[in-house]
Formats: sequence, structure tokens, C-alpha cells
Amino acid sequence: MSAYTSMAHLKFLLQEVHKVNDLFAFEKFSHLNWEQAWMMVESAKMLADRDMAPYFKAMDEAPAKYDGKGGVTTHPQLKRIIQQAAEQGWIGGAAKFEHGGLQLPMMIYNAGQHIFQAANNGCQGYFSLSAGAAALITSFGSDQQIKAFVPNIYEGRWQATMALTEPQAGSSLTDITTSASPANDGIYKIKGQKIFISGGQHDACDNFIHLTLARIDGAPPGVKGISLFIIPKFWPEKDGTLTPNDAVCAGDFQKMGQRGYSTTHLAFGDHEGCRGWLLGEPHKGLSYMFQMMNEARIGVGQTAASVAMAAYQASLQYAQERPQGRLASEKDPLKAPTLIINHPDVQRMLLTQKAITEGALSLAMECNRLYDLAHCTSGDEQHRSWLLLEILTPIVKTYSSEQGSRSASLAVQTLGGYGFTTDFPVQQHYRDLKIMSIYEGTTGIQSLDLLGRKVTMEKGKALQELLTEIGQATHQAGTYEPLKRYSKNLQREADRINEVVAHLGKFAAAGEIDRYLSDASVFMEQLSYVVIGWQWLKQATLAYTQLQSARFTDQSREFYEGKVHTMKFFFRYELPHAEACAKTLLDPEFLTNLKTSKALI
Amino acid sequence: MSAYTSMAHLKFLLQEVHKVNDLFAFEKFSHLNWEQAWMMVESAKMLADRDMAPYFKAMDEAPAKYDGKGGVTTHPQLKRIIQQAAEQGWIGGAAKFEHGGLQLPMMIYNAGQHIFQAANNGCQGYFSLSAGAAALITSFGSDQQIKAFVPNIYEGRWQATMALTEPQAGSSLTDITTSASPANDGIYKIKGQKIFISGGQHDACDNFIHLTLARIDGAPPGVKGISLFIIPKFWPEKDGTLTPNDAVCAGDFQKMGQRGYSTTHLAFGDHEGCRGWLLGEPHKGLSYMFQMMNEARIGVGQTAASVAMAAYQASLQYAQERPQGRLASEKDPLKAPTLIINHPDVQRMLLTQKAITEGALSLAMECNRLYDLAHCTSGDEQHRSWLLLEILTPIVKTYSSEQGSRSASLAVQTLGGYGFTTDFPVQQHYRDLKIMSIYEGTTGIQSLDLLGRKVTMEKGKALQELLTEIGQATHQAGTYEPLKRYSKNLQREADRINEVVAHLGKFAAAGEIDRYLSDASVFMEQLSYVVIGWQWLKQATLAYTQLQSARFTDQSREFYEGKVHTMKFFFRYELPHAEACAKTLLDPEFLTNLKTSKALI
Repeated sequence: MSAYTSMAHLKFLLQEVHKVNDLFAFEKFSHLNWEQAWMMVESAKMLADRDMAPYFKAMDEAPAKYDGKGGVTTHPQLKRIIQQAAEQGWIGGAAKFEHGGLQLPMMIYNAGQHIFQAANNGCQGYFSLSAGAAALITSFGSDQQIKAFVPNIYEGRWQATMALTEPQAGSSLTDITTSASPANDGIYKIKGQKIFISGGQHDACDNFIHLTLARIDGAPPGVKGISLFIIPKFWPEKDGTLTPNDAVCAGDFQKMGQRGYSTTHLAFGDHEGCRGWLLGEPHKGLSYMFQMMNEARIGVGQTAASVAMAAYQASLQYAQERPQGRLASEKDPLKAPTLIINHPDVQRMLLTQKAITEGALSLAMECNRLYDLAHCTSGDEQHRSWLLLEILTPIVKTYSSEQGSRSASLAVQTLGGYGFTTDFPVQQHYRDLKIMSIYEGTTGIQSLDLLGRKVTMEKGKALQELLTEIGQATHQAGTYEPLKRYSKNLQREADRINEVVAHLGKFAAAGEIDRYLSDASVFMEQLSYVVIGWQWLKQATLAYTQLQSARFTDQSREFYEGKVHTMKFFFRYELPHAEACAKTLLDPEFLTNLKTSKALI
Repeated sequence: MSAYTSMAHLKFLLQEVHKVNDLFAFEKFSHLNWEQAWMMVESAKMLADRDMAPYFKAMDEAPAKYDGKGGVTTHPQLKRIIQQAAEQGWIGGAAKFEHGGLQLPMMIYNAGQHIFQAANNGCQGYFSLSAGAAALITSFGSDQQIKAFVPNIYEGRWQATMALTEPQAGSSLTDITTSASPANDGIYKIKGQKIFISGGQHDACDNFIHLTLARIDGAPPGVKGISLFIIPKFWPEKDGTLTPNDAVCAGDFQKMGQRGYSTTHLAFGDHEGCRGWLLGEPHKGLSYMFQMMNEARIGVGQTAASVAMAAYQASLQYAQERPQGRLASEKDPLKAPTLIINHPDVQRMLLTQKAITEGALSLAMECNRLYDLAHCTSGDEQHRSWLLLEILTPIVKTYSSEQGSRSASLAVQTLGGYGFTTDFPVQQHYRDLKIMSIYEGTTGIQSLDLLGRKVTMEKGKALQELLTEIGQATHQAGTYEPLKRYSKNLQREADRINEVVAHLGKFAAAGEIDRYLSDASVFMEQLSYVVIGWQWLKQATLAYTQLQSARFTDQSREFYEGKVHTMKFFFRYELPHAEACAKTLLDPEFLTNLKTSKALI
């Protein structure tokens, strides 16, 4: 079994960079202290070591597969994994005590999830999906609904899923056609098809709770007419019995990665017998779903960072053990080969991976912290946390998945020919990762969200809050002589964001909305470099002050030196591409308009 | 079956950009004219349509697999493919008439191979490997050796392979230990293990000819003591019978891609009965092997471009057929969804793919043309062609494989969730492509070759020839007003190459060779952008003059407009990253040295 994460880095992020201890001062989390929280995280590592990581390859080689009879066959270990995760509190852990949870800060809950994602990302999908769906029922459901579903989900006996996509609509939720006809007492008769439903009806759970977007008869067109329904496979009757509900798995999708994770096609009401229970109010389904969707986007970003981290750790371990070749300056063929970690190009590949994965994971933890603050604080502070979370959500999703794929590609490359073989896990990480830029809204959609909604929200306040945060970090770093150069570099790139937004804003102001948004993905790339540069400058500033104080109680001197070094590496090798993106965005030509499709021949 | 290449683009490259007609003026190719040559290429398309493309998925789903008894089981179609390819002349096609070939220019031969690579890259590997090995025997072997092996290889009955890699040595050929003890008359007794042998002993051919690097007893250490041997699985005795030769397949590697293409572990002389036939002179094996290796590097680059092209074509077809969503400016949810090709971000993904794949294929054709010129001309002209080919070889290999992977990732992304499923070919292209940056020397090794050998050869002459070529292209483009801006941009980036080389040269001059080479991969990236920019400016200049003349005999107006548009796209979106690479390379910090490995924790 290869190494798959760095507990030292995780501890550094929680304890030093993102200061989880601050959260224990809030009443909601006052039942915890650092030692308890860290013990919880360490228990996740033990669970992952024992029950998840050893099955990473096996679950890929025996893919979840439709059995032709309405169910999906999964690897036999999956049932144990879900049960163990549930028992240790890793499904409902972030829920309040009153709903059967452990009331963990999202930072701690997701530190545990990070470990599972790095160890075996497909199987973590099953229970994180359940957790998100249960939280949604808890937020908007009636007491009766909460009681009927949530405990069973948290106990890992029932699997919950989100059912949005339809064959004809794809990412365009406006075009959803699944119908809901009122029957009685909040119960509707459902008819429709959903595809790409992760965690769909498999053999490791007893019941399936599909949170489903549908249109009530006569609802307004577009997204304003979408409602949210709870559609169980087996309906829990008042007397406690379960009745089949005509919500069946009609097939599955076989995939290039995450092969242990079922992806299903669901048919509701093919035999006119599908009941759905309205969640919350009619026509508000999409806004409800966005609670889960936003958490899922951060979750996908964190998963991508975690899978890339696992690939990095595996390639680092290989590079430290594999002798091959000699440095260019060593001409004597009789000298023993050196470890490949000593080759500059291998170091470049490893440092690139370290910069991407540790940077992305730091951003995910920043988001987890903001989530916790948005749920503990009030007034301006809450609003500020919420604004920052809103603008960072599409970024953590996109940077981690796009650059995570590149990072895993470098992991394969570090192992050379071996990396391409199924004897090593890095090729599986590479395959698994490709879905992350598609899940929960593709990179294109995230970028439209960033530039179209988040940058413009409250007259640009979210972006300005973010740039203020970055400004504080550059200011702090700038007070230390050896960090001044990097501080200045990052501030210059942050300023360039304003320049680009002002330039693009002219198109928006002129009503040229398609043009304003046409290069949203490039803007996403530019801002992502700046945001990850910010995470690295924060990490390096902390590490630098620790090195100055020469107290190494938490981590070793080499650990902190590694952080400063990786920051320098990111600033030298990655950050210049932010300016290249700006150059593209400021270029006067407009090349992706309706006419362009004619040029595509 | 999805579209997998553009015959129009291929014709444009051959006929207009790289002027294959010029070659027919040389005696060697005087037996051909354009109509005949193009008919040959079209016959390749028919063969690929009928016998290769339809089996692309099936050969992935029934991987070549070791049978536990010394052989590899392949898909039943493979035998027919190899036989058909041989019959049509696609194994020996580039060989001279006297060796049983069709004496095709490499440009035409590889235009055909491009079609096969795009249709089914794994199966094309089998016969292109045979072709390269047979050419090597022809170049350096005795008449007796040529007669014994080459006809059988060209007829597709015998498979030839190259056997370099050993478990302990990996990419470091210096450390090869396979031994050769003189027996008699040029025959040696061989003992050793070779891994990652593509096309190794499978059930679609009758015999296997392994061109193997080994060390004759007492040979000098290092690469200067390596010799090349012909090691058949069955030895062709003088009386025409075949005797087993103790050269057996001991196992295979299962891989994430190119699953239909066997990758084997060969054991020579486990029972002391392996005979090898010395090819050429002792201790010159590596230089001989480099003939095949250089061709193979161009071949891998072209294959990467071709596989990425197939992914591009499949995603383009999907985008032209799939309605989904509406433009951002269209607020009415009752309006019919638009085809996804009309979304700016989808256009960006398609144009990026078009820019990468058509640009890379143009570079591959440039190399094929230079190869032909180097084999038809003499004196200064020959030397110039050879120098250009030397410096472009690592670039076509690396740009096509690295950016080809990114391109195929965008193809997956264009299809969204569907792209990740095995229902569509793009995920297979993405998996297959990953090996291309590893085959025949990884990106790291290609980059060392570029900066360490090619840039420095003959006092920088190869680089200066290349920059002269680029200068001619920018000069020509600059004579047309609408192209001036792009001409200037590219010339500025070409000049920056000199600036970077001068900066790095200071380290080389000071004897800091490890530092000089430490960022070779970044230099590779920088120069690649400039070289592909050159290919695009050449294509666009031609297209522009065709548009001006308003004669559209060969291609349509839209076709030429598409070329100009894609050039502009490349210059706007891709070329700025060349400057970012330069910024990295000119940065004074040195972050990948021996001490760095301590920071990697």
C-alpha cells in the first residue's frame, strides 16, 4: 500500500494555517478541544488504513455493475466500509447533536473526509453523498420527514442521492421535465427519468432516498418552476413497513474512473406507482438544492485535491526508493545510480505536485473554515464569511479538479512506464480525477458562476473582500525581508485581477453579456493562480515565523523549510501564468462568438 | 463510429503547407505523382474505416493478456489488421523497392499511419514497430540478415520489436546488463531480462524478432559498450526451418490505456539456449538504435497528435449534434435549447483542441518532410534538413504528447458526463494518450536532449536554423497587413528564445551543468509554443493568400477561414504562456538542486 496523504500537512493546515482552535470558542463547538478533534482525525486515518486504502485497486478492478434486475452489484467490502464510517460518525458527523450528529466543525469533519478521499475516493462518495442529502432534509424538511429518513441515512443503512440530471437537459436544469402531480397531503405522483445518479441503487444498502428535482403540474417554466422531492425506493409507511415505490434503477454507466462508485439511470413511475414527498415549499427546489450543491462543489474540489495528494504521495515514495541514472554532471558510468528524487526534473514534477495539492487542500480548508464561521457568527462577520465562501466555492472546485488532473499526470510521469501500469495506483488516481471537473457543474459552468454571479454579486463586494484578504496576507508577508519579493509579486497579480475585471466590465455595461462571459474559464484560471498564491504565501509566512522562532514543537525544521521552498516554487513556476491569462483576457480580439462555429471544420 | 480525422486538413498539410509535390521531383520518388500518392492515403482511410476504427473499443475491452504459457492473447481482429496493412504496403511502404517496399516518401507513408493512429492507435503500434525495426536491419545488417528477416516482417507474418529497457536500468541505458558471449560467426549467447517490450510475443504473428541492446563480454562500461543484436523467438536455420531460441515471453503488463497493445517482459537465455545475431559492429548498438529511436520519437509525437485529433473530431461531432442550454443573453426558458457548439466555452474547448491537434500534426508533417529531404538531398541542404530534424524531434514528441493529453481532456470535458463513460471513445483517447509522454524517452529526457544536445550542437547551429525558418515565416506573414500583428508577436517570442538561451548559457559556461539543465522542461514548453505558433502562422499565411485569390479549388472558403481563425486563437490563448515560461527561466532563483529533496516532506 502506497502512502496517500501527509498527516503533518493536515495538522499544519488545521492547527496553524486555518486555526481550528478558534472555532472551539463558539458555543456550537465548545464541546471539543484540539486533542479530541485531532484524535477524531487520527481515527479516520486508522479506518482508512484498515478498511479503505487496501481496497482501492480491488474496487476499480471489480466495477460497480448493473445486475440486469434493477440493482447494482458492488465490491463486497463496500458494505463494511459504509457501516464502519457510519459507526465512527463519518456520515452524520457534521450534523447537530439533536439530529444524531457529532456536531463537528466542517473543518474536522472534512479533515476526516480528506483522508477517505485520498485513500479510496469512490467509496467516500457513497457516504458523503448521504451526508449532504441528509443535511438538506434536515434544513428544509418537516420533523416527520427528518424522523423518517435522517437517522437511517446516518446509520449507513439507507443511501441518499441527488437526482438532477435528465437525458435531454444535461447541465441545463431549466429543461428538466420530470413531472409531479399532486396526490394528497404533500405527496405527489412522479414520472420521469434521471441519469448519472451517483450512489444509485446498489447492494450495500437497504433503501435509497433520491432527492429529486421535478416540476409540479402547471409550474412556471424555467428554474422558477422546479420543486424538490424525496423519492425513496421503498416508502416508509406510518406503521414502519417499507413498500416498493416504482423508483427503480434501469441501468448504469461504465466509466473510465471511479469504477467502484455506481453511476445509475433511475426511472420514476414507469408503472404509474411512484410517490414523491415534497420537501419544503413548491417551486423552491433549486434554491434548496443549492445548499447541497454548494457543499458538494467544495466537496468535489476537496476530493480532487485529495486524490491528487494520494498520487503525489505515491510518486514521492517511489522517487525516494528508485535508483536510476546519474546527474548530468556525473560522467562516470561506473558510479552507482542516484535516487530519482535527486534529478532536477523529478524534483520539478514533485514540487509541482506538492504546490498544487497542498495549495488546493489549503484552499479547501479555508472554505471549510468559512463555512463554519458562516454558521457560528452573525451580522457583518457572518455576511463576510458567506461572501468569501460564495466566491471561493467555484474556484476550489475548478482549480483542484483541473490542476489536480495535471498533478496526477505528473505523478504517472514520475514513475515512468511503471506509472502507466495497473501495478501502481497513480494511473487510477489519474483516471478517477477526470470526473472532478465535470461533477456538480463543469469547469465552464463554474467559470460562468464565478464571473457572471460571484464577481458581480453585491456590486463586486465578494471579490473585494477576497482581494482585501489577499492584501492582508501580502502586507503581513511584506514585513519580513526574505518574503518581500513574493509579497510584491502576489500583490501585483492581485491588482491585475481588478484591471481585468474593469476591462471585461465594459462589455457587461454595454449589454454584451455573451462577450463579457466568453472567456470566463480563462478568468477562472487567472484568479485561481492568485488565490493559490495567497494560500502559499499564508503557509510560508507562518512557516517562516516558526523557523525564526526556532521552536519546533509541532513540526520539524525541514517541514517548515519545505513550506517556504514550495511557496517560492509556486511563485517561480506557476504564478507567471496568471499574467499570461490576463494578457489573453485583455487582448482586443473576440474569437468565440456565434460565427466561430463555421470556422470549426 | 465517431469521426476520427479530417482528410481535408491532411490534404492541406501535404499539398499546400508542406508541399509534398516538391518531393516527386527527386529521383527516389519520381515514380509517384500527387494523384497516386493521395489515392494511397485514401486507401489507408478505407482500410481504417473498415478494419481498424470499428475495433477501437473492442480491443480496449478485451486487453492483450499473458496466457501464462509464454504468449499473449490478443483480439482476434488484430491478425486481420496486420495482414491487411501488410498487403496494402503499410508496413514496408517507406522502404526502397529493392527491399520489398513501395519507396513512398515518409510524408505519404506517415499520412497513412496518421489515419491508422487516429482510428486505432494500439493496433497501429504493432506494424509501425515492425517497420522501424526492419528499416534498422536494412540500414546496418548484412545481406544475409536482411534476407532472413525483412521480407517476413514486411509481409506481416513476423513481428519485430525493440528491446532496450531492463528492470534495474529503466531509462538509463548506461546501466544495461544483458550479456552477450561470443559463440561463433557473429552469433552470441545472450542472457538477460527486458521489460516494457511493446508488441511482444502475441498470437497474431508467427515469429518475433527482438532488436536487443546487450553488452559483449569485456565491453567498455557505459553506453560505449552497448551492442545491438537480432534475437528471434524462432531461429531461421539455413535450411529454412525454425528452431525455438530460448527467447520467451515471461509475463506482461496491464495498463490504463493502449490495452489492446501487448506490453511484455522478455527473458533471454533462462535455459542457456538464447542465440543473438550481432547487427553491425560491436559497441555501436546505441548509435544504430538511435536511427530507429529518432524515427520512433517522431512517430510517437505523430501518434499523440493523431489520437488527440480523433478525440477532437469525436467531440466536435458531439457538439454539432447535442442541444443543451441557452446563451447567457437568452433569458427565455421556453426558447429551444441551442447546440452546445454555440456556447463560447465549448467553442474555446474545441478551438483549443483544433489549435493543438492540427498544429501538432503540421509539425509532424514538417518533420516527415525534413526526413525525406535529408534522404534525397546532399551537401548543405541535406545538413540543414538534418539539423532541423534533430532539433524538432524532441519537440514534436513532447508537445504532441503533453498538449495532446490536455487536448483529449478537453474532448472529454466537451461531452460532460458522457465523456467519462465508456459509451464514448474520448475517455479511451485520454487514457491511451498518457503513455505518449513516456514512450521512447520521457518528457524530462526529451527536454534534456533538446537543451543539452540539440541547442548546443554545432555551436547552436540547429537552433539558429530553426529561428531562421521562423524568421522567414514571420517575414512572409508580415507582408500582409491583417497578419502583421501576429507576425510581430511570434517574432518577439522567437527573439525571447535567444534571450533565454543566452541567460542559461552562462550557467553552462560556468560549468554548472546541472543548473543549466534543471529547467529543460520549461524551456521545452517555451520553445514548443513558438514552434507551434510558427506552424500556425505558416498555415494561416497560406490560407490567407488563398482567401485573397478567391480560388477555392482544393478547399472551401470556410476551411481557409477556419485556419486563419485558429491561428488567431492560438496566438491569443496559447502563445502568451511562452512568455510566462521565459519569466520562469529568467528568474534568478534555483529551486531544484540536490538540497531540495529535503524540502519534499
